[in-house]
Amino acid sequence: MKVLLVFAHPEPRSLNGALRDVAIAALEAQGHEVRVSDLYAERWKSEVDRADFPSLTPDARFIPVAASKKAFDANALTDDVKAEIEKLLWADALILQFPLWWFAMPAILKGWVDRVFAYGFAYGVGEHSDQRWGDRYGEGTLAGKRAMLIVTAGGWEEHYAPRGVNGPIDDLLFPIHHGILYYPGYDVLPPFVVYRVDRFDEAGFEPVAERLRERMRTLATTQPIPYRRQNGGDYLIPSMNLRPALGDPGAAGFALHVDDADADGSLKATRP
Amino acid sequence: MKVLLVFAHPEPRSLNGALRDVAIAALEAQGHEVRVSDLYAERWKSEVDRADFPSLTPDARFIPVAASKKAFDANALTDDVKAEIEKLLWADALILQFPLWWFAMPAILKGWVDRVFAYGFAYGVGEHSDQRWGDRYGEGTLAGKRAMLIVTAGGWEEHYAPRGVNGPIDDLLFPIHHGILYYPGYDVLPPFVVYRVDRFDEAGFEPVAERLRERMRTLATTQPIPYRRQNGGDYLIPSMNLRPALGDPGAAGFALHVDDADADGSLKATRP
Repeated sequence: MKVLLVFAHPEPRSLNGALRDVAIAALEAQGHEVRVSDLYAERWKSEVDRADFPSLTPDARFIPVAASKKAFDANALTDDVKAEIEKLLWADALILQFPLWWFAMPAILKGWVDRVFAYGFAYGVGEHSDQRWGDRYGEGTLAGKRAMLIVTAGGWEEHYAPRGVNGPIDDLLFPIHHGILYYPGYDVLPPFVVYRVDRFDEAGFEPVAERLRERMRTLATTQPIPYRRQNGGDYLIPSMNLRPALGDPGAAGFALHVDDADADGSLKATRP
Repeated sequence: MKVLLVFAHPEPRSLNGALRDVAIAALEAQGHEVRVSDLYAERWKSEVDRADFPSLTPDARFIPVAASKKAFDANALTDDVKAEIEKLLWADALILQFPLWWFAMPAILKGWVDRVFAYGFAYGVGEHSDQRWGDRYGEGTLAGKRAMLIVTAGGWEEHYAPRGVNGPIDDLLFPIHHGILYYPGYDVLPPFVVYRVDRFDEAGFEPVAERLRERMRTLATTQPIPYRRQNGGDYLIPSMNLRPALGDPGAAGFALHVDDADADGSLKATRP
């Protein structure tokens, strides 16, 4: 497989840097080809602004969605964005690696998403009818590819448990898993999360590294999170509400969009 | 009241720009004093990096949490960050206004949080014992102040409904409401959200503007979302898990952390 790892930590000599090296070595040992987008090292520009759209005339009102569509259609995105799109199309699997800051990705990585996930590429894809509502949530440009997160968190694992005060980690990551990765088509694998990293010591590293190596060895075979496909019949069009009969009666919120009937690995979980 | 509005849209001639002006005018008409941090206009730096910590020696390993703590304690944060902290301490109410991009805040605003919410200021505050786990989630430096979001979204309101495909808007905003605003102490008001803004027309503006004016008129009196206080007895220490007896039996995930018994406006909702 071809793997793109997007790395968003400012210090190479960090736990994140060490885990990145472990991941790359494990992937290459499997015969995978790995490319890295090291956002801090490459001085990635985080802000969506007029400079992203050189063809926009100086007095034109800047409408980000419209400008993105026009620039993508005309192949007029900036070179840094085009290079990332090319890498995403090249890769069979995408890994986003970052420290969880304020329960979300660091600004520099959000800026990578905001700028690279252009209209016509990652959203605004496909037709709308009474049968389909665009190619999104399981369909789209990046369908057939896999994605997963490698995340470090300062807090305790218990605080991210189903009843923990921070909120469950699966719910905190849902806007990324479902809203950023599943939306343009990726099959999203369960995340790799390390907790209490502010108190991490040398002795703790090797067990974590081995757990990460195992995830990299199984990158091609791990069952994705069985999110429901938007156009698979589970949602009403155009309200895009889950049909009344569907969903575990005890489920609410984000959990409704996981199809537990698939959790044994059938159907979506075995798509390429 | 003193109000700080942090604005994160790149185009002043946008719907967001127009709504910002409506909000400011409505607040000033009430006699409130308003300051604005216009992140794009001020060319806010989004990335947490070594440049944020001038006292860090060039060969020192950069550990963001440790560097933040040391710089805050020594009053050695950069001037742009210090100016924002001063405004946050000045303001009785904080408004964050932004377009929802990929189900989260734009990178430039996330970078404002990442850089301004320093250790010792917004986290790492208070003592840990078997009675308390730091001053956070309802306590902390910014306790007694109010915060709310003004958000624009391209998608349909139905798609953000409790069973909508995007996930419920309250859950999508939970990492901001609870994780970023309630964490350092703010009382968090229900958000002001406008949907389908990509198809917005002139005729649609005035009803939305009037709804926003009403929210600005009631900024001091609107009941906050009744999140549970971490140290109020609802959570076990140190696991910080909600006590087994608490929470609506039908609730799961983020909803557990809202105390429905308070939804009538008693207790937390009437704190100053």
